[in-house]
Amino acid sequence: MNLRKIAILAPGLIGGSVALAVSRAFPQATLAVWTRRQESLPLLQKVIPQAEASTDLSLAAHADLVLLAAPPSALGSLVRSLLPHLSPTCLVTDVSSFRSSVEKEITPLLQGKARWIGSHPMAGSEDSGLASARADLFQKAPVILTPSATTPQDVIRDATFFWQSLGARVQTMTAQAHDAQIARISHLPHAVAAALVLAAGSSSLSLAGSGYRDASRIAAGSPQLWTEILLGNRHEILTALHDFQSACTTLTTALQKDDAPALLKYLTEAAQIRRTLPSA
Amino acid sequence: MNLRKIAILAPGLIGGSVALAVSRAFPQATLAVWTRRQESLPLLQKVIPQAEASTDLSLAAHADLVLLAAPPSALGSLVRSLLPHLSPTCLVTDVSSFRSSVEKEITPLLQGKARWIGSHPMAGSEDSGLASARADLFQKAPVILTPSATTPQDVIRDATFFWQSLGARVQTMTAQAHDAQIARISHLPHAVAAALVLAAGSSSLSLAGSGYRDASRIAAGSPQLWTEILLGNRHEILTALHDFQSACTTLTTALQKDDAPALLKYLTEAAQIRRTLPSA
Repeated sequence: MNLRKIAILAPGLIGGSVALAVSRAFPQATLAVWTRRQESLPLLQKVIPQAEASTDLSLAAHADLVLLAAPPSALGSLVRSLLPHLSPTCLVTDVSSFRSSVEKEITPLLQGKARWIGSHPMAGSEDSGLASARADLFQKAPVILTPSATTPQDVIRDATFFWQSLGARVQTMTAQAHDAQIARISHLPHAVAAALVLAAGSSSLSLAGSGYRDASRIAAGSPQLWTEILLGNRHEILTALHDFQSACTTLTTALQKDDAPALLKYLTEAAQIRRTLPSA
Repeated sequence: MNLRKIAILAPGLIGGSVALAVSRAFPQATLAVWTRRQESLPLLQKVIPQAEASTDLSLAAHADLVLLAAPPSALGSLVRSLLPHLSPTCLVTDVSSFRSSVEKEITPLLQGKARWIGSHPMAGSEDSGLASARADLFQKAPVILTPSATTPQDVIRDATFFWQSLGARVQTMTAQAHDAQIARISHLPHAVAAALVLAAGSSSLSLAGSGYRDASRIAAGSPQLWTEILLGNRHEILTALHDFQSACTTLTTALQKDDAPALLKYLTEAAQIRRTLPSA
């Protein structure tokens, strides 16, 4: 794949980090960055000075790759406005954390208009926004591609090449499999971290050690962004929450009955799973 | 307080880290370390080569400070064996993560035999055991002292001086207040991290990003140690779990009803609390 021009639309933390990583990985490529609001241009030019910046979507014309970094709820209207500037050979992808509803909306819009494949880069932090962008955000980060049964192999290959060039570990699965797995490994932890923080309250924060600090970190993430993500994948998250509640019932019963063997079994099973996770 | 000799009994991660930190903070003091098992002596001599090491409790004789680093369930019998070697001026403290039941057992045993005060250093990691000891483990770590109404001021003052010399931030509160607050800020996160890991399972671990990694880290801790801790403070943890379940119900209902304002409120309240936690 020859990437002469790359356009990044509506960058926040993820899109901005892609822009910085692209500048390193493809220093010869033209980098074009679009933002919806005029007021965002100064920050954009400060964080990504090497990019052409504009509020006019025609800046995406002739791009070999367009990254849609807008929130999922804004993707449909963004793609409709983008259509006149796309060529059928342009690879278009996004960064949405839930896939089934996004694929359902975006795939028909881009049919025959561009080479579309969905991406979910699993990187980020409790910070959000363009000002937190980092060139190394995707180093060793999982990126999941969610092609449909009809996505051509060259589209999968080129999207894989792109994310791997930014340092990511690329996996491919269906949108349905993605949503079921990510509900458990990403969305559930986020949703539950908030409950932990609410139960602990603010009066004991001066006693917080590294355990609380790490376990609750993601609860500081953007409430707006996470409301959209959790509702976008709510059916799968509710299934995961059901299993989580079953585990909590095991815990509660063991504590109520002062049942050391049951509690040891519960903690041992979890420790065995967690210890198989390789260090970052 | 003049610390000419410091004895550390049954060191694991915490006791071993105290030994290493003591060597830096009090290089003139004699350091004596006791372990119950002969087989533990080689590791002990490797990790803390500057210490006198023995399986004979008489090594604690003439110590100005004795740190009981054994698990809470072993403290009673350890203190009984230690009594013949204590002088009334010796400061004795421990490292137990729950306080009420420990105070109830240990305080009467040491009455008139030594200057006793309970300590809970809130440091550690998912690693446990002497081999993971670190001299800087207590830098900026909270250490909670739990004096009773009759603990003399000089005992509080000397214990504060000791832990502050190792870099810790010392707070003082009753054992009851400690157990209620620590249930929420330390024990609940540990207990719930295991449920998160069990709900996520092992099949999606290759998709784990930094969110899951941090939220679940403490689930890798020692199941034996945490069974003892959670049962030792189970009444307070059950109260905290009740509030946690209420927050989870708010979450579940918002997801079931596709209720964006309710979910945004839930996430916003948590983010506001979490963002008040100063960086480590």
